[in-house]
Amino acid sequence: FKNTIKRIIQFAKTVKKIGDDDPRRIAHSFKVGFALTLVSIFYYVTPLFASFGVSTVWAVLTVVVVMEYTVGGTLSKGLNRAFATLLAGALGVAAHQIAVLCGDKGEPVLLGLFVFVLAAAATFSRFIPEVKAKYDYGVMIFILTFSLVAVSSYRVDELIELAHQRLSTIAFGVATCLGTSIFVFPVWAGEDLHKLVADNLEKLACFLEGLAAEYFAEKGATEDMDGKSFLKVYMSVLNSKPTEDFLANLARWEPRHGRFLFRHPWSQYQTIGVLSRQCAYLMDALATFITTLPKHKPNMDQDRHLMIQTACGEMSSESAEALKELSLAIRTMTTPALANHHASNAVAAMENLKDALSKEINILPNDLHMATTASFLDLLVI
Amino acid sequence: FKNTIKRIIQFAKTVKKIGDDDPRRIAHSFKVGFALTLVSIFYYVTPLFASFGVSTVWAVLTVVVVMEYTVGGTLSKGLNRAFATLLAGALGVAAHQIAVLCGDKGEPVLLGLFVFVLAAAATFSRFIPEVKAKYDYGVMIFILTFSLVAVSSYRVDELIELAHQRLSTIAFGVATCLGTSIFVFPVWAGEDLHKLVADNLEKLACFLEGLAAEYFAEKGATEDMDGKSFLKVYMSVLNSKPTEDFLANLARWEPRHGRFLFRHPWSQYQTIGVLSRQCAYLMDALATFITTLPKHKPNMDQDRHLMIQTACGEMSSESAEALKELSLAIRTMTTPALANHHASNAVAAMENLKDALSKEINILPNDLHMATTASFLDLLVI
Repeated sequence: FKNTIKRIIQFAKTVKKIGDDDPRRIAHSFKVGFALTLVSIFYYVTPLFASFGVSTVWAVLTVVVVMEYTVGGTLSKGLNRAFATLLAGALGVAAHQIAVLCGDKGEPVLLGLFVFVLAAAATFSRFIPEVKAKYDYGVMIFILTFSLVAVSSYRVDELIELAHQRLSTIAFGVATCLGTSIFVFPVWAGEDLHKLVADNLEKLACFLEGLAAEYFAEKGATEDMDGKSFLKVYMSVLNSKPTEDFLANLARWEPRHGRFLFRHPWSQYQTIGVLSRQCAYLMDALATFITTLPKHKPNMDQDRHLMIQTACGEMSSESAEALKELSLAIRTMTTPALANHHASNAVAAMENLKDALSKEINILPNDLHMATTASFLDLLVI
Repeated sequence: FKNTIKRIIQFAKTVKKIGDDDPRRIAHSFKVGFALTLVSIFYYVTPLFASFGVSTVWAVLTVVVVMEYTVGGTLSKGLNRAFATLLAGALGVAAHQIAVLCGDKGEPVLLGLFVFVLAAAATFSRFIPEVKAKYDYGVMIFILTFSLVAVSSYRVDELIELAHQRLSTIAFGVATCLGTSIFVFPVWAGEDLHKLVADNLEKLACFLEGLAAEYFAEKGATEDMDGKSFLKVYMSVLNSKPTEDFLANLARWEPRHGRFLFRHPWSQYQTIGVLSRQCAYLMDALATFITTLPKHKPNMDQDRHLMIQTACGEMSSESAEALKELSLAIRTMTTPALANHHASNAVAAMENLKDALSKEINILPNDLHMATTASFLDLLVI
């Protein structure tokens, strides 16, 4: 019994946390409830119900299925649904007209054949990457509508009227969803993507900052680094690809909003994402390096050691500054002013170190951050 | 005009490639067509249609929506749909009974309120990660069915009969999908996951092998490494997480098949996946290291240089052997016989090198592979 109470409390805490993490989620839940109630008025008001009849079902169904968290999601699903229904409905009616020509016996056979061929072809098209990315839902609705129209045409007499009723209720459902998601506390996929990319750059900067402050500090190299928080901060960047791709895909559907225009260069964000991940991979390698290798003090004179340490620290902190600058520039949508300066400082520090060490083959992987950071700058043409 | 033809040819090639890459895709397309044709027999046979009426629509709808590429996908969607419909239908009928008590005026208001509250609560529950991962589709169907039943109860008199008809057609649709996807050329998510994990290990092994054969070969270090194929081979491992999680999620729904039992330890595959990716991150760092750094010959005597090179080569090739052995062991589901031997060879080579170099701080990141490889072994308890 005690366990049950514990679990309920635990569960309530989880729920509260989800709401606190992003209050827009609560707003979204209410929006769905609101849109559904709005659309069900069709049923309650007698004259409205009389003109649409049982097809009113489709308005409710559309709202539940099309309503997504972001504006881009709702738009992409809504437009996919509307156009796929229109196209498949027309094709279904055409299939019916052809099948009727074959007489009573031939009709179901021919209809069955049509459904089989079109469903198989459309299903296969969902494996094409471009279709999958943008029109997956549309193709599914296409198969659905075509099968429904073609198959039920065998039983229904006023096919055109039925199709018309369905189409208008679906259109009404889509319109309700779009209205609710664009005008009531909109959640823009583009804005989320923008924030995610800037956040990720900042996380990378935090790692480098931590590196400079803790590992390349006076006693850093001999201290135990396990459990330092800066060694975890880049982790979420490693697997950011699916979220980024998902958001970028939805952002392309969104109209002008805030400081984002209609054809905002979303693919640039994905390019920055790829570079951020490359950076994060290097950091992961460096972090493994720092935490797993035994700390045997190198036998070399103190001066040299100090020199290397200082140079590495400088490289890290300058790169961190540059990344922070870039992150800020993305956030405020301005040209980064000081990033170039910091990056060239970092590169200079690296060159100095290299000169000093030219007789050794010791080149810390850290250097590589510089190369990547530098390539960031070239790409920042937003 | 020529461009159009070119594009069509290009498109045909893409389509052919998709089919060739995985012929099961073609089989899947035919399966969907087959299941749809099967379910539409409901319409064509008069006695069947008479007993279900318009509800037959739901059988077609269910097939289109539930039929997924893998058995696990179909099972998870089908069961989610069936149980959510049952639960929501029962709740909808209950809501109707309560609302009727409030008289003609109160009924729509109360129904609207019920729909609003349940839809909002259920939508919010989709943000809980556990629900999202396993029951997302079920919650959507729950909202859908509850709204439909509750709202249309205002207009329909024989609510129970309608609910009964729908439930049976949906059950029939689900059964058709399951039958087709389990018994006609089944595609098991579990098998795909198994293959993916083994393939990924082999890719890592290929990288190390390439490293030993090309970079640590006689003239390797001065040769230009850009464009060598082994430097690309690990790339697909970097972003394997979403595919792995997706497949593991579906595999949990699948019943016993082939050599996989019903509670096969799928989460172990995810653990191996995490380690594989960590390895791939290190390889990415190493690859960047190899390709971007200038090739300045270190000033040290030839013997030393040769010694380091040979040792690194040995480490790489022994680790590659160990990884291959592990990959083979996963594939054949046996205990790896020689992997331990190879791994300890690799570790021994590393120790030798370390002893020889103990006066320098040069520790190539390559060493880290060993640590990771060794940790693989501990985890291989499948």
